Amino acid sequence: MQTETASGVQAVLFDVFGTLVDWRSGIAREAGRWLAPLGITLDWSVFADRWRSRYQPSMEAVRSDRRPWTTLDRLHRETLVETLAEHGINDLPDTVLHGLTLGWHRLDPWPDVVAGLTRLKARHMIAPHSNGNVRLLVDMAKRAGLPWDLILGAEVVRAYKPLPDSYRRAVSLLDLEPEQCLLAAAHNDDLRAARACGLRTAFIPRPTEHGPGQTTDLQPETRYTLVAADLVDLASQLDC
Amino acid sequence: MQTETASGVQAVLFDVFGTLVDWRSGIAREAGRWLAPLGITLDWSVFADRWRSRYQPSMEAVRSDRRPWTTLDRLHRETLVETLAEHGINDLPDTVLHGLTLGWHRLDPWPDVVAGLTRLKARHMIAPHSNGNVRLLVDMAKRAGLPWDLILGAEVVRAYKPLPDSYRRAVSLLDLEPEQCLLAAAHNDDLRAARACGLRTAFIPRPTEHGPGQTTDLQPETRYTLVAADLVDLASQLDC
Repeated sequence: MQTETASGVQAVLFDVFGTLVDWRSGIAREAGRWLAPLGITLDWSVFADRWRSRYQPSMEAVRSDRRPWTTLDRLHRETLVETLAEHGINDLPDTVLHGLTLGWHRLDPWPDVVAGLTRLKARHMIAPHSNGNVRLLVDMAKRAGLPWDLILGAEVVRAYKPLPDSYRRAVSLLDLEPEQCLLAAAHNDDLRAARACGLRTAFIPRPTEHGPGQTTDLQPETRYTLVAADLVDLASQLDC
Repeated sequence: MQTETASGVQAVLFDVFGTLVDWRSGIAREAGRWLAPLGITLDWSVFADRWRSRYQPSMEAVRSDRRPWTTLDRLHRETLVETLAEHGINDLPDTVLHGLTLGWHRLDPWPDVVAGLTRLKARHMIAPHSNGNVRLLVDMAKRAGLPWDLILGAEVVRAYKPLPDSYRRAVSLLDLEPEQCLLAAAHNDDLRAARACGLRTAFIPRPTEHGPGQTTDLQPETRYTLVAADLVDLASQLDC
């Protein structure tokens, strides 16, 4: 019954942070790599959580037009400075701030991702539709071997998810109808917004995105087109 | 001396029609495929030339703001109807007009293209920067096996080449400086415009793009960063 409603899907779009890549472990690793040599000692996973907690508020300033379009790289740089200040750390060298900000370009995919994308690509257009900027997504893909057909995302459509324009403009660039696009994500808010724009949806749980004590997005909170254990399962459900 | 000036290039952008794909043979084939079954007899290569001759004027209406943003698929559809009318052919079924318009998505690459792109991709970001719309470029890439890192082009940047904004916005999306990008093209006008925006340039002659009697773009008309016999040679000159 589930695969029936996914018939006609020509493009599969993916949320990236959390859905495809393990940002928490990756940013913890990058924070240690850049900050430990300066004599800084922190719980790097907690640091990653604190930095990430500023993600949605920073984009909200752009979504609500309180500030002009700003790339995620720049927002990450600003929120890094804020997160460091929260820990009493100020005035780090630009090379460290820049290098650590680019840590978001060097995140590792979950183990199923490359295999699943490779299978999906054989029968569908596949693209990230992330709030990450274009260069971030290209760097990540080249490092991790993500075989995208094209890069979509907030910078291309000039609208951060979950604004409706973000999904609508991505569909328009593919010259498809919304129901011919499927968004795969580990986050109920993203999927709900895509569904409201008419896209098909697939919930892929990532129960350790936020670490061992995760309490959110453990289950689909509403009805989606598909629920898949991972990207390999998604490929199977889409007959790839 | 030539490769010296290409140092620091991180992204190689490509013109597509003529530079990477043989539009004249491909459109002649597609025209025959769609029109011959209707009893229409034409010199299909001449038909391809006539259709293509309306390409620049159709974009010029958009460049000059005489009409709002319009995708190349739509311009191709309009200029197809005009070209058919020029031959006294009117009122063809929508399926034929649509199918033949999509012939531009099904063009074959020159023999060196896939091998050259594959080598270039190992050390650079590679993308088409074409006046073709996103869906056209994705369909072409999937059919021909063009291993793009991302799709750029006029629709993404909302400006048809050779407008300066077309090149500048592509550079900006890659978060690079203009001199870190190289445009490879078979056309002097495209390369001159890119060079004026600060990009590095590579001329790749395609002396049969317009058929056996081609008189234009046989030689580089000014000084470019590189002149390469084909994409494999370009890869070698860029140490890929």
